[in-house]
Amino acid sequence: MIYTITLNPAIDKIKYLEGNLKQEQNNRVEKNFIDLGGKATHVSAILQQLNQENIALGFAGDMNKEEFYRVLELYEIKHEYIEVRNESVRESIVVINNSGGSYMITEKGPIISKLDKKKLSHILEDKVKGGDIIVIAGSPPPTYSLQDFRELIKILKRNSVYIACDVAGEYLKAALEEKVDFVKPNEHELNVLYPGEEEIYEKFMKLSGRVKNAVCSLGSEGAMYMMKDAIYQVKPPKVDILSDTGAGDSFVGGYIYGVSQNYSTRDCVKQGIIVSASKVQHYGSCKIDLNQFNYIENNIEILEVR
Amino acid sequence: MIYTITLNPAIDKIKYLEGNLKQEQNNRVEKNFIDLGGKATHVSAILQQLNQENIALGFAGDMNKEEFYRVLELYEIKHEYIEVRNESVRESIVVINNSGGSYMITEKGPIISKLDKKKLSHILEDKVKGGDIIVIAGSPPPTYSLQDFRELIKILKRNSVYIACDVAGEYLKAALEEKVDFVKPNEHELNVLYPGEEEIYEKFMKLSGRVKNAVCSLGSEGAMYMMKDAIYQVKPPKVDILSDTGAGDSFVGGYIYGVSQNYSTRDCVKQGIIVSASKVQHYGSCKIDLNQFNYIENNIEILEVR
Repeated sequence: MIYTITLNPAIDKIKYLEGNLKQEQNNRVEKNFIDLGGKATHVSAILQQLNQENIALGFAGDMNKEEFYRVLELYEIKHEYIEVRNESVRESIVVINNSGGSYMITEKGPIISKLDKKKLSHILEDKVKGGDIIVIAGSPPPTYSLQDFRELIKILKRNSVYIACDVAGEYLKAALEEKVDFVKPNEHELNVLYPGEEEIYEKFMKLSGRVKNAVCSLGSEGAMYMMKDAIYQVKPPKVDILSDTGAGDSFVGGYIYGVSQNYSTRDCVKQGIIVSASKVQHYGSCKIDLNQFNYIENNIEILEVR
Repeated sequence: MIYTITLNPAIDKIKYLEGNLKQEQNNRVEKNFIDLGGKATHVSAILQQLNQENIALGFAGDMNKEEFYRVLELYEIKHEYIEVRNESVRESIVVINNSGGSYMITEKGPIISKLDKKKLSHILEDKVKGGDIIVIAGSPPPTYSLQDFRELIKILKRNSVYIACDVAGEYLKAALEEKVDFVKPNEHELNVLYPGEEEIYEKFMKLSGRVKNAVCSLGSEGAMYMMKDAIYQVKPPKVDILSDTGAGDSFVGGYIYGVSQNYSTRDCVKQGIIVSASKVQHYGSCKIDLNQFNYIENNIEILEVR
C-alpha cells in the first residue's frame, strides 16, 4: 500500500476580484475556486488519477474538516486523518486582481497535541507493513518539532518500507540523517542545503552520495538524477503553462507511481516529468489528463549534463 | 415566536497579518478570528443573549455549512436553514496589516434555486402564526430577485405578524410598498431613498409617514424616531469603541426585544441604543455584556430635535 502523510494540509481558496484590491473598501469577489493544498495530498490526488490505490494520512483540524474532506472528494482521495479538536485545517488564500497581480495569505496551521502525535504513530505502527511506500511531503505545522519528525521516520523505518520525503530546510537535513529512501529538493532547496558557491551539479552529487534516490527538480527544465557517476537531465517538451502550483508534487506522484510499479530510476523520473508536464497545463493544483501523456513521453529529452 | 430571516448569511474571517500585505509574496497570518456575518443572524445572536427565544431561518450553502453552524453555536443560535446544495455560505475576509489599515474581501453568495425559494415559503407558511415577529435583514444574494423578496413579505402578511425589515436600496423601497411594520435605514440609506437636498429630518418625516414604525440610526449619535409629529434623538453616552461591526444589527436586536415585551416605541428605541452601545465595546460582531446596560441606560439622553 502507498500512504501519503501531510502533516499540515490546507484548503486553497482562490478569489478573483471584480476590480483591484484596495485598502479600506469593500473588494467584491467575481469568481471563487477551492482547491486542495498540502504537498502530500497532491501526491495522493495524482496517484488516484493514475489508478494507484493509496491512503492519505495526517492531521486535519476538526473545525472545518467537512470542507476539507469535500475538497479531498474532488480527487476521490481515500483518507484517515487524525482530527484535531478545536483547530482548523489552514486556509491559503490567493486574491487575484482584475488587472493581474496577486496576494497570497497563508496560515500557520493547527496546534497538534502530544496525544494526537501519538495517535499518528499508533496508526502507522498498526497499518504499515514491509514493502509499503510512504510519502511525507510539505512542512509540518509549528508545534510539530524536528524531533517529532525524526521520530515519525524512525517508526516507519522499523518495517522495511520505502520512505519518500519532499521537505525543505531543517526537515530535509533530518530526513537525510534518518536515511530515508528518496528526496526531491528543487534548486533553491538544494542551495539552502549546500550554501556554497559550487555549481549546482556538484551540490547534487554531494546529495546523491547521501541518499539512495535523489532528484533535483528544475521547474520547466525538468529534473536531474544521478546514475553511475553521471548526472542526467530529463527535460519535458514545451507546453502551454496554465499554473505551476503543485507541479513539484505531481512530479513526486509520478515518480512514486513508477516506484510502485518497479520502474527503473530513469523511468521513475520520466514518469514524474510526464505527470508534471500534464499538470502545468491545468489550473487545478493536481489536475492531470492521461490523454496528454503520450505526446509528452514522445517528446521528452534525456541529456547527460555532467 | 421571533423568526429572523437571513437570505445571504456569511462567515466573517478576520486575519491579522504578521507584516503588511504585499503583492507577489507570501503574507503570513499571525492571528485568525472567525465571526458571524449576515445582519439577521446578528439579531438572533443579540436576542439569544437577552434570553429571548428565536429561530434563525434563511439559506445556507451546504459546502461549508458545518463551519457556519459552528459559528452560530458560538452564540447558541437555534436555526433551521435551508441547505443549498453544492453552494457555499459566503465568506467575508478582512485582512488587517500589522501597522494598521485593512482590506475587506466579500463574496456574492450562493445561487438559490426556485425549489429552495419555495422551501422557504413552505417553512414560513407552516411555522408562522399570528402574533409572531419576523426580522428580515441584510441584502439577498444576487439570484434572489426583488420579486422573490416581495413574495416573501406577502406570504408573511397572510398572518397578522409584525414584520421588521432592515434592508437598503430597492429592497427598502419594496418593503415600504409591501407595508412592513418596521424599517431602520441609517442616514446614508435614507439619503439614497430620498436623494433631494432637504434636511435629514424632512426625509425622516416622509419615511415615517409611510410605515408604522421607523427609526433612522445615526452611528455613535444614536438613533431618531418620530412621535406625535415631533422627532426625538436617543443618544448613547460616550463609550470606548472597539468595533462598530454589527452595531446597527444589535440596535435592531434590542428594538425587537422591546417589541416582544410590548415596550413603548420610546423604550424600544432606548433598548436598541443600550444594546448597540454595549456591542461597540466588544470586538465580536454581536457580543454584548448585560452588566454594561445600567450605566448606558442611566446616561442616555433623549432630545427633541424637531
